[in-house]
Amino acid sequence: MQSATQLVSLFEAYYKKQKFDQRYDVYRAMEYIMTMNGKRIRPLLTLMACELFEGDIKKALAPAMAVEIYHNSTLVHDDIMDKAATRRGNPTVHKLYGTNIAINTGDMMFSLAYRYVGITEKPHMRKLCEMFNKTVVEVIEGQSLDMEYETREKVSEAEYLEMIKGKTSVLLACALQMGAWVADASPKDQQKIYDFGLNLGLSFQIQDDYLDAFGDPKKVGKSPGGDILLNKKTILLLKTIELAKPAQLKQLNQWMIEKDKVKKVEGIKKLMESTGAKKYTEDLMNDYYLKSLKSMKAIKSSEESKKPLLQLANFLRAREK
Amino acid sequence: MQSATQLVSLFEAYYKKQKFDQRYDVYRAMEYIMTMNGKRIRPLLTLMACELFEGDIKKALAPAMAVEIYHNSTLVHDDIMDKAATRRGNPTVHKLYGTNIAINTGDMMFSLAYRYVGITEKPHMRKLCEMFNKTVVEVIEGQSLDMEYETREKVSEAEYLEMIKGKTSVLLACALQMGAWVADASPKDQQKIYDFGLNLGLSFQIQDDYLDAFGDPKKVGKSPGGDILLNKKTILLLKTIELAKPAQLKQLNQWMIEKDKVKKVEGIKKLMESTGAKKYTEDLMNDYYLKSLKSMKAIKSSEESKKPLLQLANFLRAREK
Repeated sequence: MQSATQLVSLFEAYYKKQKFDQRYDVYRAMEYIMTMNGKRIRPLLTLMACELFEGDIKKALAPAMAVEIYHNSTLVHDDIMDKAATRRGNPTVHKLYGTNIAINTGDMMFSLAYRYVGITEKPHMRKLCEMFNKTVVEVIEGQSLDMEYETREKVSEAEYLEMIKGKTSVLLACALQMGAWVADASPKDQQKIYDFGLNLGLSFQIQDDYLDAFGDPKKVGKSPGGDILLNKKTILLLKTIELAKPAQLKQLNQWMIEKDKVKKVEGIKKLMESTGAKKYTEDLMNDYYLKSLKSMKAIKSSEESKKPLLQLANFLRAREK
Repeated sequence: MQSATQLVSLFEAYYKKQKFDQRYDVYRAMEYIMTMNGKRIRPLLTLMACELFEGDIKKALAPAMAVEIYHNSTLVHDDIMDKAATRRGNPTVHKLYGTNIAINTGDMMFSLAYRYVGITEKPHMRKLCEMFNKTVVEVIEGQSLDMEYETREKVSEAEYLEMIKGKTSVLLACALQMGAWVADASPKDQQKIYDFGLNLGLSFQIQDDYLDAFGDPKKVGKSPGGDILLNKKTILLLKTIELAKPAQLKQLNQWMIEKDKVKKVEGIKKLMESTGAKKYTEDLMNDYYLKSLKSMKAIKSSEESKKPLLQLANFLRAREK
């Protein structure tokens, strides 16, 4: 069994072997984002899941590539939609190449992702196509909900969870299932590794929202409260609204239109605590994390072989930014 | 064998049976463009090719849907890139829904296209995935070249042909091959029907450029010369530059910066004629048309069974707009 570092190296070596015709701006733009210090979490999940079920890791490289290219393609289009100027400290693709090339680059990467699904060395790849397809559609539905919620007055907790499930979790889950499928894991085990990823993803995304408000500024690496300043409908804010007593709700509405940024962030954070929304969010994050561990436990593989994925889960959970 | 009208009805009935969750803006936007009076040329090609090789037409409906949804997804993104306000007389998707939803809608349609490839009722669909994938990548490469040519000073005829091959022809060719594949046509016949589509597509796109300059204004339905006014690098302009004598080139350069629109169009059209570029373009268009007929002739099916596709080819060729 190989360590995470070894698996990432394997993936990087595979990536470097690919030839993309540099005459085309879309391939140059693609290489730009693909080599922008991503953590390679998703391909790592595919490779680790393949190892967990004792599959041939070489056959998992193509689907690992598919999920990583697809993930990055969503970043290219999302950055256009969010008008984001930087990503991982670098200019975004549309800032560097212009919006038109960025749209086309995202489309190209999307197509290439399917190419890698298609060249996965296993017979009867219909199932692989199906799981990738289903996931991609769900990711876009998640993005669609996210945009819709921006202009909506009320969003329920269930609706919020449906959205982050699409935007974040299903691709992590799919990355894992693809690796398990390559390794001929049983349908039951495929479902369990999928559930492991799904719940881990939910926990991860809730934590993202949480750290944005309550992370240690020194460790988050950016001034916290970005979501609060934008009145973004995170689980923290939704829950604060839901749990607030009339007087608290009145306060909240005042803070939401407050111009002083520091006061606004501090004011709303205090309400998140006093209403119990902070505690609720911590519990929810933990619940999903425990659920993911439970799914992993139910998989019929040795404890030893589960270690790398559990370490990765723990690494994601322990992050402070 | 069914008529074109019957096949289009079959396709429309299949489309109407699909359920797209109208809660999502992306599906509403998709339905908007999908029911915007498109001519359904591409799905028709898939269905006709299936009939030509005596396949089960029901099994060709899913790939026909895939090509039509994919084609429309490219229109949604192209319209954003071109800043086009209308399409087929209606507001474009990004004008009606905003650019963000339009980007997301194009992405969603792209994914759905793959879903329909994936549900095609035939075992061992790797080949189908491959041909669709290859085509999609080529279409985007074509779009990439098209954008690059806008800012380039010199574009050769070969480069122009490479670009229109990607932007237009390969999808027509793929639509046909998918229908032939469903019908279990031999690899040789699949190649021939592909070539038929490829050459027909090249002829079609050259004709598009030609009609924009030399079409009958009453029939074109818009004031002609749109490409000329934009100094667009069509085959007509490229060839005029190539064939022009020094004095003609000087004239051309003057016309290209002329402010009076009517004078500019008339002046450049005259040069297209006097340099021989118009005649060259007509010949090229005819050559590709004849090549497409030759590919069709080489297919081992009855003359009777080829009629619908030949009629469609003739219909496309006889169009005056």
